[in-house]
Amino acid sequence: MTTEELLKYRKDTPGSIQRIHLNNAGASLMPKPVLEAVRAHLSLENQIGGYEAAAMQKQQLDAFYTELGKLLHCPAKNIAHATSSTDAYNRALSSIPFEKGDVILTTFDDYASNQIAFLYLQKRFQAKIVYCSLSANGGMSLEDLESKLKKCQPKLLAVTHVPTSSGLIQDVEGAGRLVKDMDTWYLVDACQSAGQMPLDVTKIGCDFLTATFRKFMRGPRGVGFLYASDRVLDENLEPIFPDLHGATWTSDEGYTLKPDATRFELWERSWALVAGAREATAYANKIGLDKIRSRVNYLAEKLRGLLAEVPQVRLLDEGGQKAGIVTMAIEKEISPEKLIADLRAKRINASINYLPYARFDLQRKHTEWALRFSPHYYNTEAELENAVRGLSENS
Amino acid sequence: MTTEELLKYRKDTPGSIQRIHLNNAGASLMPKPVLEAVRAHLSLENQIGGYEAAAMQKQQLDAFYTELGKLLHCPAKNIAHATSSTDAYNRALSSIPFEKGDVILTTFDDYASNQIAFLYLQKRFQAKIVYCSLSANGGMSLEDLESKLKKCQPKLLAVTHVPTSSGLIQDVEGAGRLVKDMDTWYLVDACQSAGQMPLDVTKIGCDFLTATFRKFMRGPRGVGFLYASDRVLDENLEPIFPDLHGATWTSDEGYTLKPDATRFELWERSWALVAGAREATAYANKIGLDKIRSRVNYLAEKLRGLLAEVPQVRLLDEGGQKAGIVTMAIEKEISPEKLIADLRAKRINASINYLPYARFDLQRKHTEWALRFSPHYYNTEAELENAVRGLSENS
Repeated sequence: MTTEELLKYRKDTPGSIQRIHLNNAGASLMPKPVLEAVRAHLSLENQIGGYEAAAMQKQQLDAFYTELGKLLHCPAKNIAHATSSTDAYNRALSSIPFEKGDVILTTFDDYASNQIAFLYLQKRFQAKIVYCSLSANGGMSLEDLESKLKKCQPKLLAVTHVPTSSGLIQDVEGAGRLVKDMDTWYLVDACQSAGQMPLDVTKIGCDFLTATFRKFMRGPRGVGFLYASDRVLDENLEPIFPDLHGATWTSDEGYTLKPDATRFELWERSWALVAGAREATAYANKIGLDKIRSRVNYLAEKLRGLLAEVPQVRLLDEGGQKAGIVTMAIEKEISPEKLIADLRAKRINASINYLPYARFDLQRKHTEWALRFSPHYYNTEAELENAVRGLSENS
Repeated sequence: MTTEELLKYRKDTPGSIQRIHLNNAGASLMPKPVLEAVRAHLSLENQIGGYEAAAMQKQQLDAFYTELGKLLHCPAKNIAHATSSTDAYNRALSSIPFEKGDVILTTFDDYASNQIAFLYLQKRFQAKIVYCSLSANGGMSLEDLESKLKKCQPKLLAVTHVPTSSGLIQDVEGAGRLVKDMDTWYLVDACQSAGQMPLDVTKIGCDFLTATFRKFMRGPRGVGFLYASDRVLDENLEPIFPDLHGATWTSDEGYTLKPDATRFELWERSWALVAGAREATAYANKIGLDKIRSRVNYLAEKLRGLLAEVPQVRLLDEGGQKAGIVTMAIEKEISPEKLIADLRAKRINASINYLPYARFDLQRKHTEWALRFSPHYYNTEAELENAVRGLSENS
């Protein structure tokens, strides 16, 4: 990324003047074209009506699907709108025809809401949850995964690509190769990876992939997406409660599902947020995900280097390849709420992972909470230095 | 409603200058304070970050619950955010512990997406769907309802308060009295009634009530709400896949649900839309729902009177009490798409109900589609006259 490019991206990000925003894994700052697209659609709705605006803008709004197709390297027909990654995840999960005793194979680092969903399935369908062991570098062990896939023949393999609570990147392509010829459904939560690194659903070989826009995608809050594979569509998987958009009430006694991934959608949505999400995807596609990944990796490594010098900071990130999420335990008597407030007072945005957000991971790392800095490509080295200075004055 | 008041409400509604908006049952026009609240929150997010903006505005955003409590005459703790009425409905429906063979008692006029959900439950849990017969005036017969409640002992009674496809108002309070001492769960879809008439959940006696903001509530698109009764909370009903907001991951093997209705929510949402929804509710509460109901009723009756004079218009509305939804068959060779386009060219916003949106109702009324005009309180008599003139030139 050239200095000229960086300056342009920062100019598109007015919030970057006011704050050192290292909470991109929470919600990033929207680039100008994203906010403008949201505003423009809201204004149009206000002038001519909500349904009338959606009808007039149909073609531009449909680019939501084609831009996401470019991002994920798949046809638009495999993409569905959702209101968040969790919403997308739940719709996907609800379509898997679980029967009593089915096995869910997952990792110790999968997202807390996903873990709660598995526990719900355990309670409701007596599903059995099996966890893949960790490899020496902290990620899931592909060796153990292979052995458990064979032994348990799981109905579902669920892997969170980049956990919310650690810098880890799980080898989702490696897992995909292992599950390729099995009946197992393969669900990837890409909530924290989408927008910060290239994603190719064919290379991953997943049946479902879910993500949100507000994080590294730099879109608005309240919108997400679901990728559903051809296998999902061909085998006619159906989410719980399709509505009159995902299905058509064709007779008094029945309905037919949409042939494409929009069967997973509900009819109503904020088209203003869809417009923003489309712009965010186009913005990322235009920069290029390889370039973004390289810059994020550079900044995250730089940040880890700076933090390693701070007494009372214990870095927690593991994994051979690491993401733009930098986590640390603070070995000092301070409440996480006070720490965040102190940082905010210095105009440094960061966030906290508490135990119930990442039980297995944080327990293993012997901490009740972790501070998280998550830089994105528009951050600068100077911002990282200032943030680390701000933290070390504090700790 | 005085002329002065009307002028103020129209001044708050810039779209009313550009269009004769008779599609309030689709999506109404947002009053200025609503759009401004959405815009202001988006700007704040852009300046300081999405999580940081939500934290800063927490108290103002919590008024979403208290304003809705005022609207529905219930405590804030019984309210949950949703992304649409269908989303709220699905979350509620998923919490009812259906077992094989359970009966769902509903009406021929319940919303299409709800009907599809019941058919899904029929397929998945062999639920049995039973329909309440019509009374002489077109609404559900309370006599038949009483007899079927006794005979079928349904697990669920589901009633759409105001159907999307007809001017009918169902007697949800009457149904509530009948179901009061039964084990049956009572779910009311108030998607088309919220914002156009008073709603009192205690008088209705329902366990769940769902609605959206974009229709008569005059809020933004992409946001809705769910009311859950104390009985729902006390009996610990649980939606499918609660997330880390609705539940807390308290141990490696389990989680606990939130004590209040927010157990039905997902964590992520557009707080900008929540801010708009709060303003919309406050705006309606300030005018007063009795006053709104009276004005909407006056305009809808006036409109029916004008339409009765138009050849080739066959009015379809039934019911003793009628809502602000005016539906008609057009007895002429014209496609519904062309009719809507012709009306839009005359700056008249209306919408169409097709057969798959209201199978039972439209089949009974011997039409494949119906034109719908849905006035709100800010519309004027002159607009109604112009719209009817526009239609009669066309038909």
